[in-house]
Amino acid sequence: MNGGNKAPPLTYREAGVDIEAADAFVERIAKTSRRTHGPEVLPFMSAFAGLFRLPLGNIADPVLAAACDGVGTKLLIAREYGRYRGLGQDLVAMQVNDLLPSGARPLFFLDYIATGKLDPSAMAEVVEGAADACHLAGCALLGGETAEMPDVYAPGDFDLCGFAVGLADGAKLPQPETIAVGDSVLALASSGVHSNGLTLARKALLERGRYELDDQPESLGQPLGEVLLEPTRIYVREVLSLFAEHPVKASAHVTGGGLLGRGSRLVAGRGRLRLEPNAFETPAIFELIAEAGSVTSLEMGRTFNMGLGYLVVVDPSTAAEVLSASDTPWLRVGEVVAGSTGVAWGDLHHNG
Amino acid sequence: MNGGNKAPPLTYREAGVDIEAADAFVERIAKTSRRTHGPEVLPFMSAFAGLFRLPLGNIADPVLAAACDGVGTKLLIAREYGRYRGLGQDLVAMQVNDLLPSGARPLFFLDYIATGKLDPSAMAEVVEGAADACHLAGCALLGGETAEMPDVYAPGDFDLCGFAVGLADGAKLPQPETIAVGDSVLALASSGVHSNGLTLARKALLERGRYELDDQPESLGQPLGEVLLEPTRIYVREVLSLFAEHPVKASAHVTGGGLLGRGSRLVAGRGRLRLEPNAFETPAIFELIAEAGSVTSLEMGRTFNMGLGYLVVVDPSTAAEVLSASDTPWLRVGEVVAGSTGVAWGDLHHNG
Repeated sequence: MNGGNKAPPLTYREAGVDIEAADAFVERIAKTSRRTHGPEVLPFMSAFAGLFRLPLGNIADPVLAAACDGVGTKLLIAREYGRYRGLGQDLVAMQVNDLLPSGARPLFFLDYIATGKLDPSAMAEVVEGAADACHLAGCALLGGETAEMPDVYAPGDFDLCGFAVGLADGAKLPQPETIAVGDSVLALASSGVHSNGLTLARKALLERGRYELDDQPESLGQPLGEVLLEPTRIYVREVLSLFAEHPVKASAHVTGGGLLGRGSRLVAGRGRLRLEPNAFETPAIFELIAEAGSVTSLEMGRTFNMGLGYLVVVDPSTAAEVLSASDTPWLRVGEVVAGSTGVAWGDLHHNG
Repeated sequence: MNGGNKAPPLTYREAGVDIEAADAFVERIAKTSRRTHGPEVLPFMSAFAGLFRLPLGNIADPVLAAACDGVGTKLLIAREYGRYRGLGQDLVAMQVNDLLPSGARPLFFLDYIATGKLDPSAMAEVVEGAADACHLAGCALLGGETAEMPDVYAPGDFDLCGFAVGLADGAKLPQPETIAVGDSVLALASSGVHSNGLTLARKALLERGRYELDDQPESLGQPLGEVLLEPTRIYVREVLSLFAEHPVKASAHVTGGGLLGRGSRLVAGRGRLRLEPNAFETPAIFELIAEAGSVTSLEMGRTFNMGLGYLVVVDPSTAAEVLSASDTPWLRVGEVVAGSTGVAWGDLHHNG
């Protein structure tokens, strides 16, 4: 609100956008990204887009799968706890795990970081976590954008969005319409709350329960902040080797909608999913959330993964084969029973 | 801050996330998206990723190009002026135009919308604008994510991020190393400020200049809000037909870094770009910004596109051929002259 033309010339930097600082950050993360680049990533000097040579191999009907999402309010916990690295893995995991139901192998990932005022050290932690996670997922961190928008985000505020592309064979897509009563449901354990339901978890634990992130509740055995920030598991290796060796009828990454919502949709129209009450362990963090917020079991189950991060439906003989391997990471957690839809889990009945 | 267990059970909705409202919005925009779907988009019921069959045709060496970006603080102007539709086109244009320098044809686009409290009508406007823009760009609006994060964004606040993937032929990538002194630089006119430099434009016009978005400065002939919100042009059709018919040495979508920054990088290492002072018109909005903020010509040129939205480098005989077509949208705006780098534009010298 200066006095018009008497004021000194306005610059982009003075308006709140420091291009030099942004360029320095971009250079720093470019090195981190290059660690994830195989020969498929093409250098191309004048492009502001990443280029990736398609590894078509012997794929009969090449189909791309694409997913995009953020990490939700988990970033508020990271910010309060002052630890950002795991968010990078969360961001990658949310996308690459979402590509898997089509059998797609992740090819590359891009990230969007929006801030009020760039905190290079915190955001570099995010990108380093993302690069390590891309390595785990076997994909390239191909590019991204870091935006500094002082009037959209307050200093310290930020948001993250990730985007992944994978390659599937259209001739080998799972066929959910073959799901039948009696089919088995196998699962991979989650690493905790992952990146869903954190808004509810925060209200329950930090507001109602008045916990601090440094508190170490007895049932957790470690600080609450650590447990909540545990990065989302990346299921690429386990799921793709299952797809490579066994017929999979359908599968789901357990995210929004929780175990009950995703479980229900997984077998939708072909039956009801009955989960075995004692087939898997629900991590202690979920009980703590339920207790602190007096959250009902039903609300917990349709918000959180409750301990299962990835579900697959296979026929019973495939299930037996998979589970017979001594080092199998898969748990048999339930089966498809008669009924039009929904999930039954002990006393709990969800008709979603 | 209620009294622990005496409070009623906490729900996700009470925590600020209204899943039902979000689902209704998703259903609404799903219809909008489907308008953009050709036969390449595969229905796949259990996937939370979009699937797109690769139209490989006779591409010798299929290479994917991927870009991601937001619309910057243009969204603050849209919000203040109460008009959101154009932001959808901006979001698509920023990505698909960035794919073009590799010669990639846009295949699909995804959007991420983050809000504090979902305003379904404003955000549906964004998605409808994006769908129309995808139609213009010949790509599918394949999917996206709408996130409601009450503690990250204040009510009314939001952010947008877009991702696009295109398909290029690795055997036909432009070869910037063939740029030589004497080459011509052609350009397509921009539709105004596009989505870059809005932070500076806002400070200059709305703070220093004390303009209101409803004001109608004489030089503009229409309200300031309309001019600032004019959507970014989509250059897909013009650029891809140029690539199809003529050898293009290099090209650039003029975004961050402005005309001078992008122009300089376009011919980097092969010479200096000399822009003809009278070869193109700089829209009146740029003069208004410069005047209101006492912004120097150099700062203007390295922040804004100054009237040129897309630049290409071709040899002089190609330039003559392109310009001889009676309906050519291309302008001859300059040439490559001796020098290691930078741009000369009348009295202005940028060594970027």
